[in-house]
Amino acid sequence: MSLLIIGSVAFDAIETPFGKTGKIVGGAASFISLASSLLNPKNGLVAVVGEDFDMEFIAELNRRGVDTQGLQIKQGEKSFFWSGKYHLDMNSRDTLVTELNVLGDFDPIIPDDWKEPDFVMLGNLSPQVQLTTLNRLTQKPKLVVMDTMNFWMDIAMPELKEVIAKVDVLTINDEEARQLSGEYALKKAARAIHAMGPHTVIIKKGEHGALLFQHEEVFFCPALPLEEVFDPTGAGDTFAGGFVGYLASVGRTDFEAMKTAIVYGSCLASFAVEKFGTESLAAVSPEAMQARLAEFKRLIAVEA
Amino acid sequence: MSLLIIGSVAFDAIETPFGKTGKIVGGAASFISLASSLLNPKNGLVAVVGEDFDMEFIAELNRRGVDTQGLQIKQGEKSFFWSGKYHLDMNSRDTLVTELNVLGDFDPIIPDDWKEPDFVMLGNLSPQVQLTTLNRLTQKPKLVVMDTMNFWMDIAMPELKEVIAKVDVLTINDEEARQLSGEYALKKAARAIHAMGPHTVIIKKGEHGALLFQHEEVFFCPALPLEEVFDPTGAGDTFAGGFVGYLASVGRTDFEAMKTAIVYGSCLASFAVEKFGTESLAAVSPEAMQARLAEFKRLIAVEA
Repeated sequence: MSLLIIGSVAFDAIETPFGKTGKIVGGAASFISLASSLLNPKNGLVAVVGEDFDMEFIAELNRRGVDTQGLQIKQGEKSFFWSGKYHLDMNSRDTLVTELNVLGDFDPIIPDDWKEPDFVMLGNLSPQVQLTTLNRLTQKPKLVVMDTMNFWMDIAMPELKEVIAKVDVLTINDEEARQLSGEYALKKAARAIHAMGPHTVIIKKGEHGALLFQHEEVFFCPALPLEEVFDPTGAGDTFAGGFVGYLASVGRTDFEAMKTAIVYGSCLASFAVEKFGTESLAAVSPEAMQARLAEFKRLIAVEA
Repeated sequence: MSLLIIGSVAFDAIETPFGKTGKIVGGAASFISLASSLLNPKNGLVAVVGEDFDMEFIAELNRRGVDTQGLQIKQGEKSFFWSGKYHLDMNSRDTLVTELNVLGDFDPIIPDDWKEPDFVMLGNLSPQVQLTTLNRLTQKPKLVVMDTMNFWMDIAMPELKEVIAKVDVLTINDEEARQLSGEYALKKAARAIHAMGPHTVIIKKGEHGALLFQHEEVFFCPALPLEEVFDPTGAGDTFAGGFVGYLASVGRTDFEAMKTAIVYGSCLASFAVEKFGTESLAAVSPEAMQARLAEFKRLIAVEA
């Protein structure tokens, strides 16, 4: 089914204990689109870049069937740029540079073909842009999934809560879930977030896996234990893209399908962290994905 | 099948953000024995206490079928005492008091009835005492499981490695696995520990679950998401007791049985943390255990 993806398409510069990049393609919607295109045939992207952007990446998305009619290319302007440095544990990072550039006044224009998508993925962006996107749809989607981050909780909590009230699924990391809810125990945090609107809450714990809550129902999916985490940037976005991409591919929104969708999301995220940026995810073949899914099944299957 | 348990039986005094206890029953072998007795009918305890110990707790172990012939009660001496204070996150703690008392010169005497056990659980104790215990057995057990902690790595690494070389299964937490192996990634840490001897390595990650490694095979079991963790003391010991108790109850040592055993261990650990000390674990009924096992199954079951 059709999946509308909105989020940043940008440049990153990343430093980890393993090395350092120049400007490479990053951004939430880049990872989401790559992940989803591995599972779902019909994806549409709404985003904005400057004239400096890597057009080969856009061409690659098109080859994967991602419709980029909704991608604005602003002449005379520069793409959003983020630079960060990861600490030794790879779980925490410092932001070195944030240049909003084209994102500063992004007005998300939804192409006519994409005003009635079956599924919507609101990647991390300002809550105002996420809300505008929803308001411009002419029909209620089957499922709206939203990702966000602590930055928006710090500077735009009222707007953020307004969007959260309108979505079906919120994906958020553990620290952000605690910040948003004021609850330390994740089970209580999820309950508090349910009360804000979303019927489904997914709490991402990085290398410690992810929890899917639908009120009293809980499902847990681990992260695949890896020998090296090379660059965690985009892992959460890839996870979200795999999750919603799987659901769109089967056209389902029930709890059982969401459990399987989380396994797909975790599986694809395990590829994303193997190299800098989008490189590893962009190289995933269907065979490699199936092999890793089989590895996942062995990791969690038990006759209890 | 018969399971020989060795470890501390002691007094603890615990402070958490939720409250504070006086002297209560603690010690690795106390939690292990309680957990195992819920699953396996034939358990024997080798330990030492002072004349100050709570004899009602020993009577309770006896009522549960734990043979305490191997429990030495030292007249005129005091039981091992540990006091600690947990930080707000409940993952880290400070030791306030350690009084070795009877543990200082503990000579583990194995009753004749227990010199040929089918299974052995070496709970956390000095490596020297763990080694002496193994040396005093007159027949090689089907499976020897060992737990330890960073304290012994700091002060007795050569002796610790000597015991590790002789056991089948090592249970250890994530930070300790890193310290023991010098590897950060847990998959690499497990491989390094395999090379020290144990064919099976279980890395406990507290609220983030546990990983079971047998060379290239990996299984992951989450911890049950709880609304409150009241007191984490003994959770790892309970986990180990549930793990080895389940294996002894079915008389199996294969990988599939170990996966199920880890689910039992995680399930019982989820009870242990609900109240101070052994109180919650001691009150678990077979029905409550079955209900929680069912909850666990829902947490991890997926048609991937």
